[in-house]
This record gives sequence, C-alpha cells and structure tokens, in this order.
Amino acid sequence: MNTIGFALRLTVFGSSHGPGVGSVLDGCPAGIPVTAEMVQKEVDLRKPSAGIGTARAEEDIVQVQSGLLEGRTTGAPIQFFIANKDTDSSKYQAFRVTPRPGHADYPALVKYGEDHDIRGGGQFSGRMTAPLVAAGAVARSMLVTKGIRIAAYSQAIGKVVDDKERGFPEINENHFKHPTRAADHEVAKRMEKEILSAGKEGDSVGGIVRCLVVGLPVGVGEPFFDSLDGELAKMMFAIPAVKGVEFGAGFRSAKMRGSEHNDPFIMVNGEVRTETNNAGGILGGLSDGMPVDLRVAFKPTASISKEQRTVDLSKKEDATIRVQGRHDPCIVPRAVVVVEAAAALVIADLLLRGGFFAR
Amino acid sequence: MNTIGFALRLTVFGSSHGPGVGSVLDGCPAGIPVTAEMVQKEVDLRKPSAGIGTARAEEDIVQVQSGLLEGRTTGAPIQFFIANKDTDSSKYQAFRVTPRPGHADYPALVKYGEDHDIRGGGQFSGRMTAPLVAAGAVARSMLVTKGIRIAAYSQAIGKVVDDKERGFPEINENHFKHPTRAADHEVAKRMEKEILSAGKEGDSVGGIVRCLVVGLPVGVGEPFFDSLDGELAKMMFAIPAVKGVEFGAGFRSAKMRGSEHNDPFIMVNGEVRTETNNAGGILGGLSDGMPVDLRVAFKPTASISKEQRTVDLSKKEDATIRVQGRHDPCIVPRAVVVVEAAAALVIADLLLRGGFFAR
Amino acid sequence: MNTIGFALRLTVFGSSHGPGVGSVLDGCPAGIPVTAEMVQKEVDLRKPSAGIGTARAEEDIVQVQSGLLEGRTTGAPIQFFIANKDTDSSKYQAFRVTPRPGHADYPALVKYGEDHDIRGGGQFSGRMTAPLVAAGAVARSMLVTKGIRIAAYSQAIGKVVDDKERGFPEINENHFKHPTRAADHEVAKRMEKEILSAGKEGDSVGGIVRCLVVGLPVGVGEPFFDSLDGELAKMMFAIPAVKGVEFGAGFRSAKMRGSEHNDPFIMVNGEVRTETNNAGGILGGLSDGMPVDLRVAFKPTASISKEQRTVDLSKKEDATIRVQGRHDPCIVPRAVVVVEAAAALVIADLLLRGGFFAR
Amino acid sequence: MNTIGFALRLTVFGSSHGPGVGSVLDGCPAGIPVTAEMVQKEVDLRKPSAGIGTARAEEDIVQVQSGLLEGRTTGAPIQFFIANKDTDSSKYQAFRVTPRPGHADYPALVKYGEDHDIRGGGQFSGRMTAPLVAAGAVARSMLVTKGIRIAAYSQAIGKVVDDKERGFPEINENHFKHPTRAADHEVAKRMEKEILSAGKEGDSVGGIVRCLVVGLPVGVGEPFFDSLDGELAKMMFAIPAVKGVEFGAGFRSAKMRGSEHNDPFIMVNGEVRTETNNAGGILGGLSDGMPVDLRVAFKPTASISKEQRTVDLSKKEDATIRVQGRHDPCIVPRAVVVVEAAAALVIADLLLRGGFFAR
Repeated sequence: MNTIGFALRLTVFGSSHGPGVGSVLDGCPAGIPVTAEMVQKEVDLRKPSAGIGTARAEEDIVQVQSGLLEGRTTGAPIQFFIANKDTDSSKYQAFRVTPRPGHADYPALVKYGEDHDIRGGGQFSGRMTAPLVAAGAVARSMLVTKGIRIAAYSQAIGKVVDDKERGFPEINENHFKHPTRAADHEVAKRMEKEILSAGKEGDSVGGIVRCLVVGLPVGVGEPFFDSLDGELAKMMFAIPAVKGVEFGAGFRSAKMRGSEHNDPFIMVNGEVRTETNNAGGILGGLSDGMPVDLRVAFKPTASISKEQRTVDLSKKEDATIRVQGRHDPCIVPRAVVVVEAAAALVIADLLLRGGFFAR
Repeated sequence: MNTIGFALRLTVFGSSHGPGVGSVLDGCPAGIPVTAEMVQKEVDLRKPSAGIGTARAEEDIVQVQSGLLEGRTTGAPIQFFIANKDTDSSKYQAFRVTPRPGHADYPALVKYGEDHDIRGGGQFSGRMTAPLVAAGAVARSMLVTKGIRIAAYSQAIGKVVDDKERGFPEINENHFKHPTRAADHEVAKRMEKEILSAGKEGDSVGGIVRCLVVGLPVGVGEPFFDSLDGELAKMMFAIPAVKGVEFGAGFRSAKMRGSEHNDPFIMVNGEVRTETNNAGGILGGLSDGMPVDLRVAFKPTASISKEQRTVDLSKKEDATIRVQGRHDPCIVPRAVVVVEAAAALVIADLLLRGGFFAR
Repeated sequence: MNTIGFALRLTVFGSSHGPGVGSVLDGCPAGIPVTAEMVQKEVDLRKPSAGIGTARAEEDIVQVQSGLLEGRTTGAPIQFFIANKDTDSSKYQAFRVTPRPGHADYPALVKYGEDHDIRGGGQFSGRMTAPLVAAGAVARSMLVTKGIRIAAYSQAIGKVVDDKERGFPEINENHFKHPTRAADHEVAKRMEKEILSAGKEGDSVGGIVRCLVVGLPVGVGEPFFDSLDGELAKMMFAIPAVKGVEFGAGFRSAKMRGSEHNDPFIMVNGEVRTETNNAGGILGGLSDGMPVDLRVAFKPTASISKEQRTVDLSKKEDATIRVQGRHDPCIVPRAVVVVEAAAALVIADLLLRGGFFAR
Repeated sequence: MNTIGFALRLTVFGSSHGPGVGSVLDGCPAGIPVTAEMVQKEVDLRKPSAGIGTARAEEDIVQVQSGLLEGRTTGAPIQFFIANKDTDSSKYQAFRVTPRPGHADYPALVKYGEDHDIRGGGQFSGRMTAPLVAAGAVARSMLVTKGIRIAAYSQAIGKVVDDKERGFPEINENHFKHPTRAADHEVAKRMEKEILSAGKEGDSVGGIVRCLVVGLPVGVGEPFFDSLDGELAKMMFAIPAVKGVEFGAGFRSAKMRGSEHNDPFIMVNGEVRTETNNAGGILGGLSDGMPVDLRVAFKPTASISKEQRTVDLSKKEDATIRVQGRHDPCIVPRAVVVVEAAAALVIADLLLRGGFFAR
C-alpha cells in the first residue's frame, strides 16, 4: 500500500491530476533541524530542466502542515502537501479503452475498475515521488546528525555509460552541477545529446543511477528479512520505471570467483575496512562500515509520441495509439534526487530500529 | 527482523549449529491441501548434491508441529522444525577474532556483541533457507489452487551462461533433472565442470537464478510501496549471497529506447497479452498477465579454503585465515528451489492482500 | 505511532494549534460512495453544542485532497485536512514549567523535550479526533455496502446513568437528536443539567458511551491477537480521556456464574442467534452474529478552571495553576460520534482482512 | 493474526490437542540473561492447582530451540515449544454440530469451515497462553535490567471481592503464595471456597485480575494509536475469557468530577509524582512515572457440566448439550501469571520502540 518504513514511516497520497500530492512522515525524533527551505531545495532538484525535461511546469511549492515548529521537528508526524497547478487531463480518458504500453493503465483498470483515476496516471504517476523527496529531506537531516551523507548521479543514460570509478567526494561535489546529473562535465554533454536525440525522434531513453552512502556505522540492518539491502531494494522498486537493483559488484558477482569477490579486511588508521568493496558495504544484510554502493536501472520513459500498438479493451481487438501530453524523454536526471531521498528514508528508519537514535 | 509478509506471514528462527531451524507461516486459509510429504519433497530439493555440494550431511527431516490436520490446513499457524544433526562448531570460535571475509561475522559481532552465536554463521547461515522452503511448499499449494505455477533454474554459473531464451514449459520440465539445476543437459555438464574446477582450487563461483511465474491474474501487487516487484526484491535479498535482482529486460533496459522497451499490447485468443515481455510481467508494480520474469544474482560462496587476508579484532592488526569447515563451492544449484519458494510466499501474500482468496 | 489498522490504515497528523489537523486513509477499495458532504456531516456531529460545549469556535471545514473522484473512492489513499482557525496559544507556554494535572504535558515534555508543541496540547489534543471522524465516514460507507450499521449514545454522564436496556433501532433513531447524545429525551435533560452544573463550578464530569454494531457477519476478527475485541479496545484507548473498555456483560461478568453468563444458542427464523448477549457479540475474538455491544468509560475533562496543585519543573517545587482557555465541561457528547467512527474503522479493516471485500 | 508487538514481536502457534503449542519471540536484544529454568518457573505458575483447577495433567516442559546460548540471548529469535501430552479429543467432534455456548466453536466453524481443528478448542484454547508466558519470562528479564517489576493478583473471584487498597510490595510478596493468587491469606480462603462451590455445582465463576507495574520511566508509549494503555488493552483481550480492561479509576472515572479525578503533581524526594493515581500511571497514552494500575475482567469459564441449550447446526433446530471433559471451574488464578507476562511483553516492546534499549 502507500506506507513504507517501520520506525520512520512514510505515507504518500494524492494523484497526478487531483488537487495535489503529499506525504506524512511519522516517527522522526523531536529536535531534528528541518526548515521549509531545506525541504523546498530538495524538491526543486527534482524539477525538470529546460530542454531535457517535460514541458509541464509545476511550481511544486511544498506546504508543511504538521510536525515542525521554529525550524525543528516536534515529534509529531510531519506532513507535506504540493498542489497540482498545471494539469491537462483532456487526453487521458482515451487510455481507459486503449491502455498505453509500458504504463500501469491496463493492470490498474483491471484492479480498480472504472473508478481508477487514470488522469496523468493517477496514483501511479512519477509525480508521487515529489512528496517522497520532501520527506527525504527530513531523513537526510536525521542522517547528518550522525555524520552520514548520500550522493547519487547518472552513471548511464542510454548508450552513454560513465565507466570511471568515482568516489564519494567527487560525486558529491559534481552531481547537481549539470541538468543530466552526470558526475563529470564531459560525460554530461554526451548524456545531454543522447536525451535530446531521443526526444527529437519522439522516443525516450533509460539509464542507471548510482548512489553512495558514506559514514554509516557498522551493523545497520535488521536481517533475516529487514536487511539493509532488502529494504533499500524494496524502496527503489517503488520509484516508477525501476527494473533492476544491485549492490557492489552486483550482477558481475555471478562470474567472479570467491577469492576475487571476497573483500579482504584491513586495518586503516585503527579502523576495520575492506580493501575492495564488491559487497557494496553490506554483509549479511548489515552495513560493514564501507560505503553502501547501490545501482538502480531505469527503463526508458514509457510515454513516447511515436505511434504504438495497443488493444481496444471495449472491442477486444488490436489498435494503435499516439501518446500525447508532456513527458520527459529521460527520467533518469530527475530520478537522481529521488534515489537519494529514498535511500535516506530507508537508512534513517533502520538507524531508528537499530537503536542509533536513543533517548 | 525475522518476519516477512503481510497477510501471509513467515517467521524464521533457529541457527546453523543450535538445536535446529524452523519457521511459522501464519495467515494461510483453512482447507489448503498440504501434507508432510509435499513439504519434505521441496526441502529435499535444497539438499546438496554429491560431488558439487557441501559434505555436511543433514537429513533435514521436517517436523510439522502446528496447523495441519488430515492433509489440509486448519487456519491456525503452520509450524516447521528441522533439527540440526551434523554440526561441527569447533572451528568457528576463531572467527570471533579474525572474521571471515565475505561473511556477516564482523558486522554481526559489532551489532550483537559477544553474545552473537557465530557457530556456522548463526542466524546468518544459508541453513535458514531450509524452513523458508518448507513454508514455500504451503504457499505453492495455495498458488496451485489458483492455477499459478513457478519454475526457476540456474541460468549462469560462473562463466557458463545459458543465454538461450527458454519458456516456462521447458524450464518446468527440466530444472530439477540435473544437480546443477540447469534447464538443459549440455549446459548442465558445463556448469558442473565449472563448479568442480572452482572447488578443486579451494575456490568458489557465483551465478544467476532465473525464475518464471505463470498463471498470475492481472492486478496482483499493492503499490505505491508494496509493489509486486518491490516485495519480490525484498524477499530475494534475504537469501544469503544475493547481490542483484532484476525483472524482464532489467539492467539492459537502461540502454534501450522506449519504442523498443515498451511491450505492445496484443489480443491473443480474446485475452490481453503483450508481444514482448521486457516488463517482466509487471507494470506499475502490478502483474500484467504475462509471466513474471525475475533474475537473481548470487555472489560466489564466501567460504573458501584458500588463505585470505583479514584483521585480528583483538590486536587491531592485519591477519590471515584459512576457512575450514564444509561448504558448497557454488550455492546456486541449491538456491534454485529457495528462489521458487521465496517467490511463492510473496505472491501468495499479495493474492491474499488483493482479495483473491475471498470467503 | 500515528497509524492504525492493517488492511485499512488510518494515519493522523497535525496538532491543536498548528496549521491544522488531518488524516490519510489507505486501503479503501475503489468504488465506495463517498462525498465531501457525507464526510462533513459526520465531522459536524463532533462540534461542541452551544451551552454545554467549549467556546472555541472552529468551523472544521474538511478538505478532501486525494482519493475521491465523482463521489466515489478511486482506490488511492483518501486524505482529509481541517485547518485550525480559532487558536489562542498565549496561555500554553506556562505549562512547560507547570504541567496541567490530568494532561499529557508532563510525560510529553519528558519524551519529546523542549521541542514538544505544547500549544493546545499539541498532538495529544482531542482535536486529533476530528480527522478520525472524517475517515470514519468512509469506513461507515464501506460498512453500509455490507448492511452493517453503528450507533452509539451517552449512557452515563457524571451521576446520571441511563440504565434502561435499549436496542439498536431506538438508539439509532434518537442519539443525535439531543446535544448530550442521550438516547432519551428525559435522560437528556438530566444529563444537560449535570454538565451545566459542573461547568458553572469550573469543574467537569465524565461519562460512558455505549456503542452497538449490527449486521456484522459471523467470523469477523483475526485472533489470536488481532481479535475483534482487542482491535476495538486498542482503537478506543486512542481517544483522549478513555479509561476503560468492556464488551457485553463486561466487568459484571466477574461476578457471574458460567450457567448465567453463557449465552444459549437458539434458532430464530432459521438463523443462529443467542438468547442473551453477555458476550457482547464476540466469542473467541470473532463476531458471533449478535450485535457488538461496547462500553467506553471517559474520565472528566482534565482542563478545569478551579485552582489545582502541580509542580514547577524548573524549581523542582510544588506549585498551583489555574487552567484557562476554552474547554468542554464534559467531552462525552462530542465523543459519541468519535466512538462510532473508531468502531467503523476497526470493523471495516477486519472485514477487508477477512476477505469480505473480495474481488 | 498470531503475531503481536512491533519491535519485540511474539508469534504463537499450535493448538490444544495437536502436537503442542509454542511461540517465537523476535527482537530481544542480545545479552539478556535468560535460562530454561527461568522460563520453566514462570510457565509452572500457570499450571492448575490441585483441587481448584482442571484434572488435565500437562507437564508443560518448555523446550527452547533457538535464541539462547550459555544463559543469554543471542539476538536471534527465541523459540519455545511445549508438547501436548495429556489430550483426550474423543468428546469434541460433537461440538461441530452442537457448538458450546460461550466458546468460539460456532464462529470458528463459520470462519474456517470443516477444517477448523475443534479438538480442545483448537487455536482458541486457553492453552495458547502457555507459550505466551514462556515468552513473557524473556520480557520480564529485559524489564529487570531497567528496574521495572510487575505483579498481579486475583482481586475478585465471583462474589468475593478484595476491596483493600494494596501497594506493589504487598502484592509482590504474597500473590503466588496461594493457589487462588489472592494477595491475602484470609481472602484466599474465601476465594477458594467460591471456586469449589461453583465446581461442585458443575458451574464456574469469573473474576478480576489487578496488575501493577512499577519502575517504569516517564514517556513510555507511542501515541496517538500505539499508546501504553491501548497496547496493553489489545494484548489483554487476546487472553481468552477477558471481557473488560480499565486503568486507574477506570469505569469509576465516569462518575467523578475533574477536580476529584485529576491527580495533583507533587515533588517527592526531588522526583515528580502524583498524589493519587486515578490515571493508573498513564497520561495521554504515556507512562507518567506512577505505577501502571490495570484491571482485567474475566468471565466465568465457558465449559460447565450443567446441561445447556444450544443449536444443532445440521438440523437447524434447538438442542441441548452437556460439556464433558476436564476444565477449570475458575480460570482467574491461572490467568494471574498470564496477565503479568502479557504486560511484560507490551512494556518491553514499547521500551524498545522508545529507544530505552539503545546501542
């Protein structure tokens, strides 16, 4: 359903073309510094960039209606609301009959029946991630009090792959400098070209977001089932368009020998570290003190203006559609801050569960 | 923690070298056909095979202590217990000081302190999947009443990759014929060689399990967060050694264009289907009527007999160890039935949640 | 925390003197008839009545910001927001030092520290029940589709006890006719006098709400722990000022013999019924087909204008206070609709869990 | 369902006449002192006493199959199993047709159908409280590490009411001295007579258990919904035969004035206390530093040997039965340790949730 998390619980509500979208974050300890400005700044990073993003121009002004007082959390649930302003629902009713390929239209119509709000994709819209990012700003502030930081970037967009091994400082410094959220200026230019080229053809491209979390204490995670990797994976798959999640060496692990994959423990300045990080910072579902290294695969945006084959549900026959409306030719750049927020929420929850925020 | 699922809840308990391992499955409707034999048969498929598996010889006799009566479920929780018989804990105490690379020893010692039961990996042992498979047999029987079937196989072991596109009938017919759980005899032979070769060198290999679920009705999944893909992914990451999960085109999606990735809807014998299955049977977190197509990446077994570098936690200095004991040079063949059971549990839970088991 | 329910989940947020109070109801099936008017009507029944209620004049206009479309639920979470308009926080800061007897001030200050929003009692305010009532209107509409109805009334206010045995039709017809929510006109007059008399003395009175639920199918409840009585009790204790909950013969059961307490089963028009209802409609945590009969004890309003003894937390010495502000001399009349809404939410949740809303 | 608790989770399984009953307790921190003897001692306090209890002679030997090592918890789930030895199921099949008044037979048969295990009441048996008591021993040990203690006693049995105000030390010293669990020798004798007299007549009596919890820190509880009183109440209603729960002045609060009910804060040796304890130690769902004072009403045992009226479900007509088998004429004495265990489990859970067991 629409709630995730255990000790820190996020509930999202709203729909793409209804009055707005919002979220409630419950369980945040009292006294965490959070201002409306901090939240707005994060949400702004999710906005489409001129040229490479959608033409839908939402201001995305975040209203905080509960849980903050004088720049700090009160211990009550924190609520965010973002009104929908720039909606155009005229083109969606047709999708009740001819569902869009790659979208949730068809299974949602079967599940919810005629009452499904199909306008803008309804509750399946990527717009639901805006209030998730708002809540993520609170989680991030919780993490900062423990010295934990998160940075993600576009590691691949379409056929442009950034295969350079990059560490946290470099990513953290560069990832929001460019609209594509590339970690490097030269790569950014190629990624931009890839997006524009797809857009011009009425098509779209996918990509990969890589996310690093540093400063995590050892032992975060609640296996057997509520493992650090399991909880992160579940959250990431909630982000629309995600088709794969891997940690450290990930799918490459399959081809490796144990002697190659096992990260040797070493002492570094009196601290236990590993020489390599094939584990992606996670052993047995617990953080091991190394950076959490997470990669998330996004499919190309499902909405494309090219003609596509679909079916006519009323006539039970094959049909074609052109999906009009305003869409991002690539969702990856906007997803970077979403992945960061999602990771922050999961980790703050697990810190609470593990007793790291004690009284 | 050690419970997963919402309407169908699995709790696992026990440890590798304690009295035994077990599970409780709660929420199964009354009247589902389940016999001790059905459960035992599934658990037996998880046993190591002579030659390519560990020398630890556990009989794995499943005792059912609650919830069944005359071959059917009663509506009460179903409990399984599997005694540990062939334990040799002598070699594990050293790992309290020199943790094994690739294992949970180090973070578990930090998290639980000196009371962590490190013998055989304790609660982090792959042995915890035996009672999960037992519970999976119940879930599978629930699915059968709805015409849903599951089959997985070893799609890759080390550098041997089975890149042939295989459909459900072929997989279902062949996957338990060979100890490697390959779906094809010739591939099986190459996989066996790969495992034996690693074992001889005191090393290990990883691999990939692919799992298909057919017969699922449309609309299974409870997004935004409790999506079909998210719930499957969380469960899969609970299986020890899993480093990546993807659906359909998965990570390959990143390089695709939308016009190529979107699966066109087509009518087939009056039913809505898609021509391709890049979505892996899941749109917007909901089943779309096509087979769920899931791939799970396993790292090589962490326990290898080669000398490895580690640290001495008491002296705070670098050290080396040789991990003795009895281990599988490749966990993938034994993981195939575990992936199936894990998928069955998630899907049965989501069917219950979605009202597919109504009164 | 601030979420309750399992398949139908209510989350409340806000505080007495912040921007407003609200709730999110998740899990309601698509297609349930709900209009803003239906919701407003229920919330209006919670408003204070002239004379016997507080002078705080809140309009309590409910905004629905998610989950409804053209008078029906869409399957997405339903969100309600009620702005706070008539707040006067000037008198609350003193309670940080001299906590009010009978209120949550003291333990909340210990728990949340200086960041606790003490204005109007913050998140502990009885005002949090307004969005609960809004959500209850949705649950009630769900129940109506199954022929289930709920009615509560003031069975006791202070020393005025309505000891007549009353059935559902009588209660349902009369309970909202009088500001005291008595089920009888003559009793109502005595109750009103009791409230006014306490108010005049700067004091307050408690009372008892009795609630009946009729039309419930047999077998609602998910024991061992999520029993119908257990879930109702937990929910009722969330309503501020509740000190006791009992079902059927309740505390009187303690003095009874089994032969007197056991309700004999009888056939009535081909249906199984019981002759008496000492069980209050619940056997073994399951509904038994008889009316659920629930009694909830409310303490007198903690806020009274009489001088009271308290402590000065800064000086660590005894002190006195007079609690000014605007308060109800008796909360019971306003609590009647809250108890109904609370019961509706619990029962709708258990119906969903039990598969009574199947697809 | 069969799991309760949030950070400390109890799952019960088994049935009255199946192989046995058991429980899994998950979330207990590593390092809590728990021995099999400690657990057995608590479970033994639940056994029937000669003369006033049932003739069913269960040894109730507790096997611990997970989670303990060398007298301390390991951090893994703790599992208990108690085999059923003295079962006689011969007399239960008739109840499928003529359900016993006061028992769950009828609604359980409707809910679970013919697969319901009716022998001994199946999963609705009071026997399910044995593994709850076993788990409670672990919770109690957790509480002891924080200086929290719990003691309950039989405050009323049938018409014998112990109306003396008794404090914790007196209760704690005396409650397990007498088979009736009275807190006073003279009252005990009268209670014993009450039980024997009912038993001789083939009848049964109810009663009230009062439970005190001392040493609780201020601020335990997670309102709005997961309040200390709400969580305790839900747990208590899981105990078979409970019909009412109240805190402090409880139902008497309804007749009180605010000036009488509000407990004045006072300073006692530099600590904040209240002069009276009408609140029962709970304000706004949070512990306030005073003893938690809880009263639980039990109905008379439903099983009586007197002839009773029921219905024949196959013929759809009125019928009579005599319930044979072996039963307690009063369940209250055995319930005293169950109420203590239940309270310990809830409080340990809320301490974990509140960060009182920090790392």
